[in-house]
Amino acid sequence: MRTGISDMFGVEFPLFAFSHCRDVVAAVTNAGGFGVLGAAAHSPEQLDRELCWIDRQVRGRPYGVDVLVPARIDRAAADPAERLLDHIPEVHRDFVTHLFAKYGVGKGKPFTLGSVGGHADEVGRRVTHSGATGLVDVALRHPIRLIASALGPPPPAMVAKARAAGVPIAALVGTVEHARRQVAEGADLIVAQGTEAGGHTGEVSTMVLVPQVVDAVAPIPVLAAGGVANGRQMAAAMALGAEGVWCGSVWLTTEEAETPSVVKRKMLAATSLDTVRSRARTGKPARQLVSAWTTEWDEAPESPGPLPMPLQMLLAEGALARIGDAAENGEPGARELANYFVGQVVGQLDQVKPSRQVAYEIIEEFASAVDRLRRITGA
Amino acid sequence: MRTGISDMFGVEFPLFAFSHCRDVVAAVTNAGGFGVLGAAAHSPEQLDRELCWIDRQVRGRPYGVDVLVPARIDRAAADPAERLLDHIPEVHRDFVTHLFAKYGVGKGKPFTLGSVGGHADEVGRRVTHSGATGLVDVALRHPIRLIASALGPPPPAMVAKARAAGVPIAALVGTVEHARRQVAEGADLIVAQGTEAGGHTGEVSTMVLVPQVVDAVAPIPVLAAGGVANGRQMAAAMALGAEGVWCGSVWLTTEEAETPSVVKRKMLAATSLDTVRSRARTGKPARQLVSAWTTEWDEAPESPGPLPMPLQMLLAEGALARIGDAAENGEPGARELANYFVGQVVGQLDQVKPSRQVAYEIIEEFASAVDRLRRITGA
Repeated sequence: MRTGISDMFGVEFPLFAFSHCRDVVAAVTNAGGFGVLGAAAHSPEQLDRELCWIDRQVRGRPYGVDVLVPARIDRAAADPAERLLDHIPEVHRDFVTHLFAKYGVGKGKPFTLGSVGGHADEVGRRVTHSGATGLVDVALRHPIRLIASALGPPPPAMVAKARAAGVPIAALVGTVEHARRQVAEGADLIVAQGTEAGGHTGEVSTMVLVPQVVDAVAPIPVLAAGGVANGRQMAAAMALGAEGVWCGSVWLTTEEAETPSVVKRKMLAATSLDTVRSRARTGKPARQLVSAWTTEWDEAPESPGPLPMPLQMLLAEGALARIGDAAENGEPGARELANYFVGQVVGQLDQVKPSRQVAYEIIEEFASAVDRLRRITGA
Repeated sequence: MRTGISDMFGVEFPLFAFSHCRDVVAAVTNAGGFGVLGAAAHSPEQLDRELCWIDRQVRGRPYGVDVLVPARIDRAAADPAERLLDHIPEVHRDFVTHLFAKYGVGKGKPFTLGSVGGHADEVGRRVTHSGATGLVDVALRHPIRLIASALGPPPPAMVAKARAAGVPIAALVGTVEHARRQVAEGADLIVAQGTEAGGHTGEVSTMVLVPQVVDAVAPIPVLAAGGVANGRQMAAAMALGAEGVWCGSVWLTTEEAETPSVVKRKMLAATSLDTVRSRARTGKPARQLVSAWTTEWDEAPESPGPLPMPLQMLLAEGALARIGDAAENGEPGARELANYFVGQVVGQLDQVKPSRQVAYEIIEEFASAVDRLRRITGA
């Protein structure tokens, strides 16, 4: 297959696979697609190790890295990571303590924010310029073919470094206006992400957003994200004018994915009605599995409401790490709370398969969908 | 073009156009598509006149009729139409009176529910079995090729009458489960409608919903609705497995549409972010233009919250009819309040064109989109 991005990225089949799991990245790249490693949770040293491993697996085939670089940071987030904790109000800490008690998480051992201090560093890395910059430097020392910025326009320093290294920059957007801004600030590739996508997402659906973004940023190429987890959906995305697709959710239930088993089982059982666009996990609207965590934060009368990013992220990720451990240990209350980011396509995911097989099935079904269109139109 | 529904409906190009305007219905049918007249607001006599007119225009070409038949009716709605008004609580009447005063609607003449009494009959017709049944009887005396039921499964009496007349029944659904139920209750065609659609709509996007519904109800044919207003979107919908598309919003800004001029101008100026899925207009979640009407009902601290259907519909349609008149008379507060049902594709609508031209442009762009896919894949 040949689209405008085939040469730009050296990719045979324009299926971009976003995953935090290096195995998924390597498997999709080796199947003819393009794996993109979500690097935000790593330290620079960890990221270097992951990329060395991927380099050995893909032997020159194309892959990329995604970092989370916020364009505008709340003042609190400009503080050193360890001081972020001080900005979390008592009432929000108390609400988490209340949830731990109500759902019996950790068998009655009360929740304290100190116990999530280890996550402060990680979250700090995710959401500060300096944290992201360290990751960019590491990534550019590897033969990556794409660097993506998931939040807001890529900062000038990142653009300059990527340009110097000859690596194209991708930016995720949820509105036409953001797409235009990202291109003005240096993005070489736009990922237009519909509201049905997992994670941070806007309000406009993929079907409506993609053609508008394609028209607004031409000739900059556009990938479609959100609602794409099979070959028919990929064909649809490309009929809308996209040059390829960017998928995340579909890899979460693969064999290789490091998704915790409780969450994986929830995903396999979920319908497309079982997600919600909620601020309960990061402070910004992000689509995720409905669970007691989202319902309590969003609907309970005693909820103080989510904090802004990155404070809610710090509080939530710290708490959810403990909740995840408890859920894996079989605690029923923790299982009710456990969730993770995922798009509405979760309703299609009902079998654990190797990533390689998922990629091949998408490629095959894409071809059938295009064939069917051709037959219908008699072309 | 030839899909499974070409023979079923005698349609050249599977573009189904839902409109309350007979001119749009006739224009799309005469362009090779399939017009569907929204009949809910008509009396049986009015409907008969409209259909006689359409019959003369389309001279045997296929068209259909859509009635609003609720499967389950709130107890209040089972009352005769004129008594519905009694079920509207004081606090809700007062809130509308407050809005009229706040926005200076009718130049200070206070709002009274009595003044909307004329709408009680109309709303009663829309949402009661007996009201809808009269319309079904009239419709089946004309050479219609489709009868659609927009709310819930078609009632047995409607199924029996349509069957006897040899007219296929279409049902609109927003979930896979509803699609299965509709087929079980006798639907011959499913319209899978994504959350981006205008009017009553569910939560799942077209991209995610359509393939799931297609798989769930096969071999029953599926049309895709929601997010479809140009040829690329139609090609995408068909790549997802739909046999055609059902469009509503795109006709609202055509030359023929009877959309009030204030609302039409709002639609032409709106972006895809300017709609909201709100209960403020009918009592059920329905996508519509954001306006002071939706913002006040959904967000104002003094709002009592929308009533259930059909009470909110009765209150809102009565009030909005007066607001519409005031807006057309140039009252600025009324202009702020005025709105109408429309999907997220409203962001694409920026020119008034004849319906016939809109239909031809969709047909033409559809062909280009399929060609592009074929070129990309080298097929």
